[in-house]
Amino acid sequence: MNFSSKLLEAAVNEVSQLPGIGKRTALRLVLHLLKRPKEQTLYLTAALNSLVTNIKQCKICFTMSDVEICEICTNTSRNKAIVCVVEDVRDVMAIENTAQFKGLYHVLGGKIAPIEGVGPHHLTIDSLIARIAKGEVEEVIFALSSTIEGDTTNFYIFKQLEKFNIKTSTIARGIAVGDELEYADEITLGRSIVNRIPFEESL
Amino acid sequence: MNFSSKLLEAAVNEVSQLPGIGKRTALRLVLHLLKRPKEQTLYLTAALNSLVTNIKQCKICFTMSDVEICEICTNTSRNKAIVCVVEDVRDVMAIENTAQFKGLYHVLGGKIAPIEGVGPHHLTIDSLIARIAKGEVEEVIFALSSTIEGDTTNFYIFKQLEKFNIKTSTIARGIAVGDELEYADEITLGRSIVNRIPFEESL
Repeated sequence: MNFSSKLLEAAVNEVSQLPGIGKRTALRLVLHLLKRPKEQTLYLTAALNSLVTNIKQCKICFTMSDVEICEICTNTSRNKAIVCVVEDVRDVMAIENTAQFKGLYHVLGGKIAPIEGVGPHHLTIDSLIARIAKGEVEEVIFALSSTIEGDTTNFYIFKQLEKFNIKTSTIARGIAVGDELEYADEITLGRSIVNRIPFEESL
Repeated sequence: MNFSSKLLEAAVNEVSQLPGIGKRTALRLVLHLLKRPKEQTLYLTAALNSLVTNIKQCKICFTMSDVEICEICTNTSRNKAIVCVVEDVRDVMAIENTAQFKGLYHVLGGKIAPIEGVGPHHLTIDSLIARIAKGEVEEVIFALSSTIEGDTTNFYIFKQLEKFNIKTSTIARGIAVGDELEYADEITLGRSIVNRIPFEESL
């Protein structure tokens, strides 16, 4: 591209480094910034600067937080005996949106993926074991995605938890609410039959 | 969405105000910023702040520029007798990329669109007439998009130019290079036959 302005070129180059945004989209976004009041862009950049400068990881559960210990971990009305293990902060938000879970979380920061060079020591597994060693936790729920990496990570943690006298569980796999049976994959449909629940419990 | 952090929420809200970016995409982009080195985000926000604060419009042709008079207008090797009228800075960049035009530009800043409340006085038409009244311009090329608004704008400017003794032209409409005839729309195909050119000139 042939820019008439170095300022424009610099801005487009920076924006086009974001994932899924090419040069043309970046130009469209940047020209949009120039059309709206300057203050709005200053708010945007201030919010981003403040985010990357001030965001913290909760020292207990490793979710994103504005303070040292997150709101969920400090909330006394939550059940500290149940810990739900998730991959990243998006999963915490997704589960919180359901309003069905009142325990605490533990954010691993990824999954064990040897091909991508992610080993157990890159994740917060040691901190999870240390949390459980304190003896307050009674149940660990695995809520990782159902892939080879997810299953490997679940199994690795499960093996380390055997020495503690705690319950482990995994979120239910099955046909999504509203989905048609005929379009479900075989593994999911098979599991949903094997792990059937009493009809009264589904009401 | 249920954010665990106010900083994260503020950043996602600001990013999701950009055109074509919803809350989920904004969250994905913002989490990406948190994964890469902090400095990269500071570069991004500095580039955007610098852009909206320091960008200027060229006082002659109204394209975006870092200085009062843009590089194209100050370039002495360009033909000041030909002015190409375009809608916005993207069109200038597109034409510059072809390297086929060595004249100057005039950026209107839009098209006459009564339905959207854009009248002639919202555009830089008066400045264009003033440029031409100085007597240095010999030809005006209309390069607006071929819509009702584009044609209206062309005609409005054309009427105002009648009192000057200058040539007016419009960019050629026809079948795009590489396009199949059978998929071309009738109006384009019709025009390309009416406005056929000697075969020797197309070589």
